[in-house]
Amino acid sequence: MKTKLQTLIELELPIIQSPMAGVQGSELAIAVSGAGGLGSLPCAILTADNIYKELKSIESHTNKPYNVNFFCHKPPAINEAREMKWREALEPYYKEFGIITDDISPSASRSPFNHELADLLEGFNPAVVSFHFGLPEKALVDRVKASGAKVLSSATTVKEALWLEAHGADIIVAQGVEAGGHRGIFLSEDSESTNERAPKYGMAMQIGTFALLPQVVNAVSVPVVAAGGIADTDGIAAAMRLGASGAQLGTSYLLCDESKTSMVHREALKSNQTAETALTNLFSGRPARSMVNRFIRELGPMSDLVPDFPMASTATAPLRTKAEAMGSGDFSQLWCGQNASGCKEIGAAELTQRLAAAFQQSN
Amino acid sequence: MKTKLQTLIELELPIIQSPMAGVQGSELAIAVSGAGGLGSLPCAILTADNIYKELKSIESHTNKPYNVNFFCHKPPAINEAREMKWREALEPYYKEFGIITDDISPSASRSPFNHELADLLEGFNPAVVSFHFGLPEKALVDRVKASGAKVLSSATTVKEALWLEAHGADIIVAQGVEAGGHRGIFLSEDSESTNERAPKYGMAMQIGTFALLPQVVNAVSVPVVAAGGIADTDGIAAAMRLGASGAQLGTSYLLCDESKTSMVHREALKSNQTAETALTNLFSGRPARSMVNRFIRELGPMSDLVPDFPMASTATAPLRTKAEAMGSGDFSQLWCGQNASGCKEIGAAELTQRLAAAFQQSN
Repeated sequence: MKTKLQTLIELELPIIQSPMAGVQGSELAIAVSGAGGLGSLPCAILTADNIYKELKSIESHTNKPYNVNFFCHKPPAINEAREMKWREALEPYYKEFGIITDDISPSASRSPFNHELADLLEGFNPAVVSFHFGLPEKALVDRVKASGAKVLSSATTVKEALWLEAHGADIIVAQGVEAGGHRGIFLSEDSESTNERAPKYGMAMQIGTFALLPQVVNAVSVPVVAAGGIADTDGIAAAMRLGASGAQLGTSYLLCDESKTSMVHREALKSNQTAETALTNLFSGRPARSMVNRFIRELGPMSDLVPDFPMASTATAPLRTKAEAMGSGDFSQLWCGQNASGCKEIGAAELTQRLAAAFQQSN
Repeated sequence: MKTKLQTLIELELPIIQSPMAGVQGSELAIAVSGAGGLGSLPCAILTADNIYKELKSIESHTNKPYNVNFFCHKPPAINEAREMKWREALEPYYKEFGIITDDISPSASRSPFNHELADLLEGFNPAVVSFHFGLPEKALVDRVKASGAKVLSSATTVKEALWLEAHGADIIVAQGVEAGGHRGIFLSEDSESTNERAPKYGMAMQIGTFALLPQVVNAVSVPVVAAGGIADTDGIAAAMRLGASGAQLGTSYLLCDESKTSMVHREALKSNQTAETALTNLFSGRPARSMVNRFIRELGPMSDLVPDFPMASTATAPLRTKAEAMGSGDFSQLWCGQNASGCKEIGAAELTQRLAAAFQQSN
């Protein structure tokens, strides 16, 4: 018998708001946690100073459980040849927008979890510390667990779920292919081509929530949270019928008052552009689900030219900035899951309470 | 308020056995229909004579509702240049297996629905006539409907579902990305690249059941049947919680006594090979979900070299035959959905009755 998610973290509602780097900060987390769900603070693109300020803000506004989220990728070395190829591919766009590329130097805009960040966390009391792209090294996982926080990470396959359980995860998110933003993939087949003729086959293998969730539930003993395609009360109830201990929703919160979703992103979310999303590596170097825009349509969603995560974003940033200044999301990462029907322009507390109806019914 | 599937076709159980060309005939359909589900006869690769015999057999064994399934693709012209390129790509394998390629002439192994087949159907009384890859021309749809049979087809997007409803479908299957075998895609974005640098992006866009199903249910007024990732009682119940009027299961029936699943396919289904499936166009020219084997690993699942559906299979058939004779499924189309946990080596009637528990509970 699995431990219940709500026993593990004293949560009122089995609803987790997905950490969404770049489109939200502490305000969204505070609203969701305040309403009884698990609000999340994404730290992947924040400086240590900003993480400190955001955590201070959360703890001064609520004493309910919250989640703080980090990436734990291995930062890549800069590969000049690959950077060059990527710039070449982008050259027609630079020309179109009059961008001088000499100004752009490659840099990693996202930092993985490390001991300095673990030091910083010691001054705070998150109920959950979550990771994307696997887990950090054992010493870091041990430090987090010693603090009393529960460790959460996402699995995109049963194999990844088993790995996470074996390496100390207390809660596992089964992230179905429907989910918006970055796939949590960390045990990828992508690099295992046995033949030069073979293109990457990872995207053709990604697993839907309906298939992934019950198989992960069956494979591990820790609580499993469903993510991907869940947008309302029925979705949460269906996930629980498939064995989930809770549901994680991201896209549904993107139009909430407390989100920092950009204007072009909000407009796209309110349009029929949500009907076409694709897994793309164009924005960061790793596959993530975005609404299809001109950039994805023209380069194709998965490109071999893209530098390793997270270096790809440096070269595209000026394009995005120029286009957005003209009111266009043609070059923006328009993160969105495959079911945007739950997006509401209301407060996140109200959205969380509306979603909770499912759970109250099913118990 | 939607008409109920079971009102529409007087079905005892809201369970459809997916038509699976090449791995089953009338025996499976008879067993499932006899147990109160909707058994299906796949006709895509049968001659008219064999379709006649199979339908005779069904009607002599059961008077319960059954489904007869056809493909309705446009047969392609033979493209010699493309055939040549495909042979070149396969040349190393032909060498390895000592196959003389002069013997192979391209031919279409699958015929679409036409007036001769509609004539043939007039002697029978199927409750449902279903199609894959859209619907045939209006005159043919009208003939089927005039016979009293209900018309069913599959949608992989909300757009396709709306198209099907507008063109006369009485029942729509929402086919999530999890489903095994051929994707029903017929309004594809694949051919709409606006830039030569863009590879096909269709596979990165395929939608999971959890996201597709409720959005299709919301968009159309006809009953919607869920397909993809459903393997057991909980899966059927969860699909119904998301608004489905019924569930279509294929993979779960592949090991049933009445299925004609080949030995290599059965062995793979009983192994951990089921954990890795991919959408691949290598076997037929159209994307279909198969377990990953040597062929997919080496050529990549989606290849630009592959001739149009269904021509691709001619050139691979001798490889498949040779490998299977040696007990290997390395070149076989190992159709399988993303959740093979429901496969049981039992009779299909018993499997259907076990699955039915969900429906009886939820009513």
